[in-house]
Amino acid sequence: MAHNLLQGKKGIIFGALDENSIAWKTAVRCVEEGAQIVLTNAPIALRMGEINKLAETCKAPVIPADATSMDDLSNLFTKSMEHFGGKIDFVLHSIGMSVNVRKGKPYTDLDYDFFHKGLDISAMSLHRVLQTAYKLDALNEWGSVVALTYIAAQRVFPDYSDMADAKSMLESISRSFGYHYGVKKKVRINTISQSPTRTTAGSGVKGFGDFISYAEKMSPLGNASADQCADYTVTLFSDYTRMVTMQNLFHDGGFSFTGVSQSVIESMGE
Amino acid sequence: MAHNLLQGKKGIIFGALDENSIAWKTAVRCVEEGAQIVLTNAPIALRMGEINKLAETCKAPVIPADATSMDDLSNLFTKSMEHFGGKIDFVLHSIGMSVNVRKGKPYTDLDYDFFHKGLDISAMSLHRVLQTAYKLDALNEWGSVVALTYIAAQRVFPDYSDMADAKSMLESISRSFGYHYGVKKKVRINTISQSPTRTTAGSGVKGFGDFISYAEKMSPLGNASADQCADYTVTLFSDYTRMVTMQNLFHDGGFSFTGVSQSVIESMGE
Amino acid sequence: MAHNLLQGKKGIIFGALDENSIAWKTAVRCVEEGAQIVLTNAPIALRMGEINKLAETCKAPVIPADATSMDDLSNLFTKSMEHFGGKIDFVLHSIGMSVNVRKGKPYTDLDYDFFHKGLDISAMSLHRVLQTAYKLDALNEWGSVVALTYIAAQRVFPDYSDMADAKSMLESISRSFGYHYGVKKKVRINTISQSPTRTTAGSGVKGFGDFISYAEKMSPLGNASADQCADYTVTLFSDYTRMVTMQNLFHDGGFSFTGVSQSVIESMGE
Amino acid sequence: MAHNLLQGKKGIIFGALDENSIAWKTAVRCVEEGAQIVLTNAPIALRMGEINKLAETCKAPVIPADATSMDDLSNLFTKSMEHFGGKIDFVLHSIGMSVNVRKGKPYTDLDYDFFHKGLDISAMSLHRVLQTAYKLDALNEWGSVVALTYIAAQRVFPDYSDMADAKSMLESISRSFGYHYGVKKKVRINTISQSPTRTTAGSGVKGFGDFISYAEKMSPLGNASADQCADYTVTLFSDYTRMVTMQNLFHDGGFSFTGVSQSVIESMGE
Repeated sequence: MAHNLLQGKKGIIFGALDENSIAWKTAVRCVEEGAQIVLTNAPIALRMGEINKLAETCKAPVIPADATSMDDLSNLFTKSMEHFGGKIDFVLHSIGMSVNVRKGKPYTDLDYDFFHKGLDISAMSLHRVLQTAYKLDALNEWGSVVALTYIAAQRVFPDYSDMADAKSMLESISRSFGYHYGVKKKVRINTISQSPTRTTAGSGVKGFGDFISYAEKMSPLGNASADQCADYTVTLFSDYTRMVTMQNLFHDGGFSFTGVSQSVIESMGE
Repeated sequence: MAHNLLQGKKGIIFGALDENSIAWKTAVRCVEEGAQIVLTNAPIALRMGEINKLAETCKAPVIPADATSMDDLSNLFTKSMEHFGGKIDFVLHSIGMSVNVRKGKPYTDLDYDFFHKGLDISAMSLHRVLQTAYKLDALNEWGSVVALTYIAAQRVFPDYSDMADAKSMLESISRSFGYHYGVKKKVRINTISQSPTRTTAGSGVKGFGDFISYAEKMSPLGNASADQCADYTVTLFSDYTRMVTMQNLFHDGGFSFTGVSQSVIESMGE
Repeated sequence: MAHNLLQGKKGIIFGALDENSIAWKTAVRCVEEGAQIVLTNAPIALRMGEINKLAETCKAPVIPADATSMDDLSNLFTKSMEHFGGKIDFVLHSIGMSVNVRKGKPYTDLDYDFFHKGLDISAMSLHRVLQTAYKLDALNEWGSVVALTYIAAQRVFPDYSDMADAKSMLESISRSFGYHYGVKKKVRINTISQSPTRTTAGSGVKGFGDFISYAEKMSPLGNASADQCADYTVTLFSDYTRMVTMQNLFHDGGFSFTGVSQSVIESMGE
Repeated sequence: MAHNLLQGKKGIIFGALDENSIAWKTAVRCVEEGAQIVLTNAPIALRMGEINKLAETCKAPVIPADATSMDDLSNLFTKSMEHFGGKIDFVLHSIGMSVNVRKGKPYTDLDYDFFHKGLDISAMSLHRVLQTAYKLDALNEWGSVVALTYIAAQRVFPDYSDMADAKSMLESISRSFGYHYGVKKKVRINTISQSPTRTTAGSGVKGFGDFISYAEKMSPLGNASADQCADYTVTLFSDYTRMVTMQNLFHDGGFSFTGVSQSVIESMGE
């Protein structure tokens, strides 16, 4: 499926680690749909991942940037505009990490330095990206920014721990900056709240397998895949969705509005 | 803008009255995007409107159907399948009318027969459409149904009166049937909550002009137009959004998540 | 526990069938807290239930009223004001019934006359009650109206069927009328969204036992009981909550904001 | 109005600065309702405010604590339990400050150190308070924690700036910890989303006067006062609301569910 939906558009994709990443698949789909892209990730992620393979497929430069560094971000946007010979039309923010979760600290025993670090990476980074773009006037009118989030921002999923609080803040930043960037330059900013997805990052969460299977049973259409998320993201980058902004959009096979499914009730039998 | 997003798809469009109708514009866009369609409306609306002009443009048959009549709906789906030589991929439900509003009855002095009538036309009609399709097995797997709604379902806009209650019910039906049709046939059902729009129907509401201008000032991107709504609807009928279901999707330039705008505050000065 | 929270207040309680009813327990608690009340229910419910026992305990008159009849409601409010020698301070609306559920019709095969009947009883009845009170100017300033609802209005619980759509509409009516009655007379109107509760009415729903036990496992504090609901309702009738209006208030031990509990995940084991 | 609703209960009140503070008024009301309390605030706020006057009225000790210091919080809870001779029943968290707002940095030009500082004070402090209490097992079963928040967590109010993001995170922490503390000890945690209130802290926000008057016009019952907020908080600390947890409760005269009021529309007309 490819319909040139993004023909002539230029974008920056944050967070493609390896083939399982949603950002990876989105990068591929954007290029298939006619866009040019720049790939970026934190230096350490660039070393660990396989981004060069993706860069080749997508004929895209890789510009390293730690999303918590204003200098890196400024360099990224400046270099990207030079590369494209013009402003940017879309940005994907797929960045998140809880140090507390990674270190196995339970929610009732958080380390607050880790918490700040996690917030900086997972939520404040979106503000940094947007503020950098805003100051450099780096986005075209009607540009579109998408950040990936999770329904733990609305309801408690115990193992998601302090990432839930970070995602709540991320969604708030998306709304807040969406207002200002909308008024100023018609740029729109939305979050996609995606089904739990078996990415390399996601797999680290405790009990993730059980949880994926619970979500699968709870969702009338089953869990949304990373490929499907990429497709959906393409529509939000396209000109078909120009008046959608400041929204949190569930892409989850109906999980978010299912109170309980027949399948879950049956699994609990006895 | 046309990208063959709906190539090979077949759909039914309810509610195109005249050129100002969202349904009219959606019909045109669906055809531009490669779909074949059937047009339908209540017999009285067919007489009052200019649907033949649209039918010609779209090369589409017009099959009259009162959306509160199970016989009419059954005939519509049966004839449509005959016409297409197969099942249906998408349906647009753009039907709504409050007899109380039309007759000038305030919300604190409703006529309950009018209220029932309004609910039947504006909300229950969606259930009737879906139940008819479900029983006739008239929709293809991954079919997509969109109904138009308004944010008065969530918050009070006094002049919207009992249409608010009807829209709440419409959105609930969309979720409820979305669950069942999703589990059974992967059909997805969503509502689009559109900016106030100057359609022939909308214009009847008291104080509509003032209200449109308030919404314009409150929305960071301004009010979404009927044309833009048609574009957005196309994405929901396409295969790019397969895992989106049971959602109420605001298409409103950011109105829904703006608590107050600078522009509104300024307009109230002195 | 009794603190004279409702001393000097006068209220009408709809829907007390027998000792398991939330309305029954609320009536008892209101009287313990110093209120005078009038009891009412549909004539058929009065015959089936044991309301005379409650009337004796509460020293309250019983005034029959079919909540779908404007004449009955008018008589109820008029007689109540005569009985109290003044206006009314609070009203509990605990009325709901789906003919389709009772007759075993699945959601994809609804009978539409039953649907209308269910809406009239479960949702429109609240509007009828409020419109009657509004026209008779029967409520004191800062009066408080509470209607009972269920989270199926927000998310799908398949067995709840068309009651979900009715509850959505009920909550919308509560908001809509809450606006108008608030502006006019400072009357506030809210809904309480209660845990599934083993009332005589609730027990009729298919698979209710399994569902109660699912909700119990999902709620951090367990399911809220009818007694606890009565306590909560008392606070909403009191003067401590004067500025709470147009809200849907979850009283459910945390169910509504729990995405999944450890206990549910464990029950799904294997 | 005083009904001994909190007789025998012991609580900690954070954030009483002067007589305009919601926390101040809540402290007074809690004592009137039969509770014993401990007052606390940051050392600097203790110096600037008039807490000794309140301490005298309430016969309450003042224990200084910087809510971003784990040592201070640990000392506060330990000393409070010594003072009370037992565990604590309720806690009010009324703490919030944006350094960016105070320094006049617009939302599109935030200083990130200030942002972190603001998050620490306004949101993470709630986690610190709860984690301290949890580890010291300082709260009785069915204890109740309330944090004050604002609707900018859901919708954009431009001048509220990064406090909106902090409040979103605060509400998420309230839900997340509410799950864990509920499962473990039946402790319930809620936020109250209060009308804009003319406190000494609030007055610092740019354009606050215009905004208060906008909110007044938009709310069917008008803005809720600090006194009314204190009354409402009392109900949440009482045993009448035991099953309410993980909720964000709007106390705002209906502002939150009013899309537009007649009064606002009229104010905008020429």
